[in-house]
Amino acid sequence: MSDLPKKIIINEEGPREGFQIESAEIPTRDKIELINMLSETGVKHIQVVSFVNPKLVPGMADAEAVVAGIKMKPGVDYTGLWLNQRGFERALACGRLHMEGALTLYSSTSFLKKNQNRTPQQQLDAQHDLIRLYQKNKVAVKRGFISTAFGCNFEGDIEPLHVVDLVSQLLEIAEEHDEKIARMGLGDTMAWATPESIKRVVGAVREKHPDLPLLLHLHDTRGMGIANAYAGLEMGVDAYDACVAGLGGCPFAGHKGASGNVCTEDLVFMCDEMGIETGIDLGRMIECATFAEQVVKHPLPGSVMCGGSLNKFRSTALTVN
Amino acid sequence: MSDLPKKIIINEEGPREGFQIESAEIPTRDKIELINMLSETGVKHIQVVSFVNPKLVPGMADAEAVVAGIKMKPGVDYTGLWLNQRGFERALACGRLHMEGALTLYSSTSFLKKNQNRTPQQQLDAQHDLIRLYQKNKVAVKRGFISTAFGCNFEGDIEPLHVVDLVSQLLEIAEEHDEKIARMGLGDTMAWATPESIKRVVGAVREKHPDLPLLLHLHDTRGMGIANAYAGLEMGVDAYDACVAGLGGCPFAGHKGASGNVCTEDLVFMCDEMGIETGIDLGRMIECATFAEQVVKHPLPGSVMCGGSLNKFRSTALTVN
Repeated sequence: MSDLPKKIIINEEGPREGFQIESAEIPTRDKIELINMLSETGVKHIQVVSFVNPKLVPGMADAEAVVAGIKMKPGVDYTGLWLNQRGFERALACGRLHMEGALTLYSSTSFLKKNQNRTPQQQLDAQHDLIRLYQKNKVAVKRGFISTAFGCNFEGDIEPLHVVDLVSQLLEIAEEHDEKIARMGLGDTMAWATPESIKRVVGAVREKHPDLPLLLHLHDTRGMGIANAYAGLEMGVDAYDACVAGLGGCPFAGHKGASGNVCTEDLVFMCDEMGIETGIDLGRMIECATFAEQVVKHPLPGSVMCGGSLNKFRSTALTVN
Repeated sequence: MSDLPKKIIINEEGPREGFQIESAEIPTRDKIELINMLSETGVKHIQVVSFVNPKLVPGMADAEAVVAGIKMKPGVDYTGLWLNQRGFERALACGRLHMEGALTLYSSTSFLKKNQNRTPQQQLDAQHDLIRLYQKNKVAVKRGFISTAFGCNFEGDIEPLHVVDLVSQLLEIAEEHDEKIARMGLGDTMAWATPESIKRVVGAVREKHPDLPLLLHLHDTRGMGIANAYAGLEMGVDAYDACVAGLGGCPFAGHKGASGNVCTEDLVFMCDEMGIETGIDLGRMIECATFAEQVVKHPLPGSVMCGGSLNKFRSTALTVN
């Protein structure tokens, strides 16, 4: 009916998004166990930790220990997130991570100032420096990312053509250094997107760069995550960040308003039911979600982990009418 | 971009769906207060109670008292749900409800047997009896409803053409009695639908009955509610049942797997942001959602009630780039 992709790539970010905002009391061995379970679901990309200041993000103070403890499954890329040279060097020093050079621009000047204390020009300069750092360490540039591509709490609505400009700038920066961005992520960092704005922004980027593979990073703060992913699928986008159980989000007062990426098993469920391959075993991903809830010791926002898949019902159901 | 409707009708079912499954300890005055608050949001249709056996559904034992206590706002239709003659007569006896004759067929023979202990033929016969009862009491037939139209836990997948047949049968039954069904509801009673199956079933019904107004009743058990509503909007469907705060659903262990309709304020948020009129004030609906959570004394699954609308951010945001 629609022009949906036949298969998609899911980048599991639950451990990184989740443990970053959860209590620092979670034992390192539980984080490792969740990552090991995720490795058995069929997912091929897991972002396991971020290398950030442990004083600011105490839940990531054990990043190196988590990476050291993973039982690495061949064929699975384990990645880390860094925001600066120090973080990159810590990731590299682990010696076990799949290192992909990433570049980032911000659609929102206000958020860039607030988050990185940089002007847009300084952020562009920093990307050149990052590429030099990657090249010095023989890490290829792979992924570009446009943050706050759909709107920003500090800046309001974002013009799709502004996002297109940033995509073009990032591609050019990489080219200047003989690097090629293989996939461009568009981040709904503050959950401003709706299915229609997903289509507008993706459509605008496509028009200028028709062959550039895209990825959507969709926060679910306003409950639009799955609908936005569906809009992305309708536009042919074949890569998504997602978090098992909706880790990173929490329906509780203490965390109200916080929210992780679109929930992995809910996304896998939708894809399974619509005939789109993810390579992920839904039953095993639901087991991971249940375990994630035990680890964080409070309910997580995933739905299919509660509602269950349809397969068990299908197998016991009578013949249809 | 898409062929979305300019405006939609939202039928608020939170009080009925919600208090039906919540503890019977909720004070009648709190239910009334929530309904009074909902009346001030701009919503024009509120299903306030169901008239069912109080032994089976203790949360609805105070249905008459709730109806008697509402401060009725002119222009708002307050409705009740009934499943049999006894329920209809109780609703009528209230003397304050907007009475609309409704007819229902089940796509799932197994669920019909389980829920009503009837065969498909007996269900057809019962619809004739219902119309006679409505006519005797001068209540016009208005709404048809096809239950389990997208799949059933007891029967598995449902053929779209079977749903089309049932729609045709229900229209014919009404016509035989000189009644006309003004709107046909398609119920995803057990949350089997995905955006693509919404499009398949709606498309199949449309092909046979292009001028029949449709309504979608979408349970959110597997997190597809908003995405399914978006698919409905893409198909031009302009009426939806919805529950404030996602009442009827609960992410807690004690209720796991249970889930109400798609969340009203999340649906209103999506429509507002996509330029589709609902007539509902999002801020007021969020206040109702917050109050609903206080009433049931546990978190409810709505997202926008936590994440907030974008308007406050827009009003403080700097000029865009």
